Amino acid sequence: MTSLKNDLLLRTLRKETVERPPVWMMRQAGRYLPDYLKLKAKYDFFTRVQTPELACAITLQPVDQVGVDAAIIFSDILVIPQAMGLEVLMEEGKGPSLPSTIATQKDIDALITDGAEESLKYVYDALSLTKRELNNRVPLIGFAGAPWTILCYMVEGKGSKTWEKAKQFAYTQPLLAHRLLQKITDITISYLKLQAKAGADTVQVFDSWAGALSPADFASFAQPYLLQIADGLKDIVPVILFPKGSWYALKDLSESSAAGVGIDWCISPDYARKLTGGNIVLQGNFDPAKLLAPIPEIKKAVKEMIDAFGPQLYIANLGHGITPNIPVDHARAFVDAVKEYRPVTI
Amino acid sequence: MTSLKNDLLLRTLRKETVERPPVWMMRQAGRYLPDYLKLKAKYDFFTRVQTPELACAITLQPVDQVGVDAAIIFSDILVIPQAMGLEVLMEEGKGPSLPSTIATQKDIDALITDGAEESLKYVYDALSLTKRELNNRVPLIGFAGAPWTILCYMVEGKGSKTWEKAKQFAYTQPLLAHRLLQKITDITISYLKLQAKAGADTVQVFDSWAGALSPADFASFAQPYLLQIADGLKDIVPVILFPKGSWYALKDLSESSAAGVGIDWCISPDYARKLTGGNIVLQGNFDPAKLLAPIPEIKKAVKEMIDAFGPQLYIANLGHGITPNIPVDHARAFVDAVKEYRPVTI
Repeated sequence: MTSLKNDLLLRTLRKETVERPPVWMMRQAGRYLPDYLKLKAKYDFFTRVQTPELACAITLQPVDQVGVDAAIIFSDILVIPQAMGLEVLMEEGKGPSLPSTIATQKDIDALITDGAEESLKYVYDALSLTKRELNNRVPLIGFAGAPWTILCYMVEGKGSKTWEKAKQFAYTQPLLAHRLLQKITDITISYLKLQAKAGADTVQVFDSWAGALSPADFASFAQPYLLQIADGLKDIVPVILFPKGSWYALKDLSESSAAGVGIDWCISPDYARKLTGGNIVLQGNFDPAKLLAPIPEIKKAVKEMIDAFGPQLYIANLGHGITPNIPVDHARAFVDAVKEYRPVTI
Repeated sequence: MTSLKNDLLLRTLRKETVERPPVWMMRQAGRYLPDYLKLKAKYDFFTRVQTPELACAITLQPVDQVGVDAAIIFSDILVIPQAMGLEVLMEEGKGPSLPSTIATQKDIDALITDGAEESLKYVYDALSLTKRELNNRVPLIGFAGAPWTILCYMVEGKGSKTWEKAKQFAYTQPLLAHRLLQKITDITISYLKLQAKAGADTVQVFDSWAGALSPADFASFAQPYLLQIADGLKDIVPVILFPKGSWYALKDLSESSAAGVGIDWCISPDYARKLTGGNIVLQGNFDPAKLLAPIPEIKKAVKEMIDAFGPQLYIANLGHGITPNIPVDHARAFVDAVKEYRPVTI
């Protein structure tokens, strides 16, 4: 057991009292950082993801340059469909696409399942290398996509505003959908266990398209699999669930084995606390677009956000990934504002 | 005063007890209807919108062919930016774009404001003609975009997943944003009054991008203008507000001058009733993607939806516009299921 110099994030996830909330930013590694853009100009997306040295270098950049309290490994949620045998293309400016999609039982049967996670050695290598390079400065976060979100891409074949094909599949062939979701879930649990073994101190599960579902459909197609993942990892590493948009599930998720739940900015901190009984670690929920505001406005808004969540049982973060157009000093102002936070004394 | 043969919608909006809920579908005029697609192949978008005979024909199609309980005039929310002097292009498959966007006080000063609504005579003519052609079969719904949503397009210049430019404008130059929002609001109130005069029995205000805002930003940039519109029309026609995604504002909006509030499928009917105290007309909230399910599934889900909302103070509708890929008989099944609804008798 090595001891971290900055373990604010892990202590918060263990529900310990902390001096101030930890802060990190979804998508902090990449996109807006000039040093990342230099690597991006030289290596294509999956080269960056699959080369441990590159993934490690990208992961460390925001720790060194922006001062976040945790590193999150540079990777992609679509490595799971790849590991299951589906081709994933990443075209610059167009987002991901999958030339072969899932529509039938036969398609599902053709997926690689047994040991699929073992083909993702480059992720574990990147984690081990990064863990070493971090030299115990801050914790390292691993991650995976949630089963519903992975199903969305597998069935739809590309990003979508409405996820109609994915929903049609789920609503029309629910048994097939559940079979696919279970396969993804099993692999994801094994994958996250191997991430922990390789050095991830905590893992986040991104259900980026959960919010496209009604509460009843979320309860059917998303929540059970999120809970299985939280249960499967609970004795290994703390799990943060982030079902973007699914505020309606907050109460249920707060009663799960997860250590924390991420929320976006479309719910007030007060209401999120109310729904969760004030008894779970909440993470979020700064509108990334607000990082385009002038720095003093950012700092003021961050302070208000922490006041509203309260400084305990809280991880300061954005409500969604940082976007490419954010000036680095604005990202830094966000992080600094959390570090400078002092509770109101009356 | 003429008497409508089917006035279920208007009686519901007056909070009267009805035999069954009225039903209509957002975007029911257009998109998925084969007869619409024939007109679309012949006339470009703004020709269809600006030619009263075409707009009328398109408006009547779902009344005749799908059996909805109300007609909604075929038009577009972006006629307001056009009336204010901004060019709006509609490219097939690409959505709307505005070559000149709003960024400065000077841009706002250059907008046409006094009497801008008078240039939209073709909308009033379409309403009058449709009212006549409907021959009192069902009520006629007019509509406009909400000020926040119109600002989004005026500033961003096109559709967006994140509305970053619009948000940056609002967060960085709030005074300018409020000045623009007020100008849009004033014109929208006049515009909707003229729609009522031309024959609209009720009007809906679409705040399609409200859900991109946090509760606090919605309270600042969207809600006050929605309330002004509801107040401005309250003695003229019933107003339905539809701030898509902004479930957090339901309580406030239920206490406004609006006659009804629309909701999307990302909130359960029970919870929406709970938040609004069961005292306002709610409209919604079927997931349009569920219209791709087999017809028996659609009918079952519609029945469950009405059971959950309760058959009074309720307008059956989708939670967002119907999409182009919905088979007409599935749309009809949705409408039929509402018409066949009988409350559970115990």
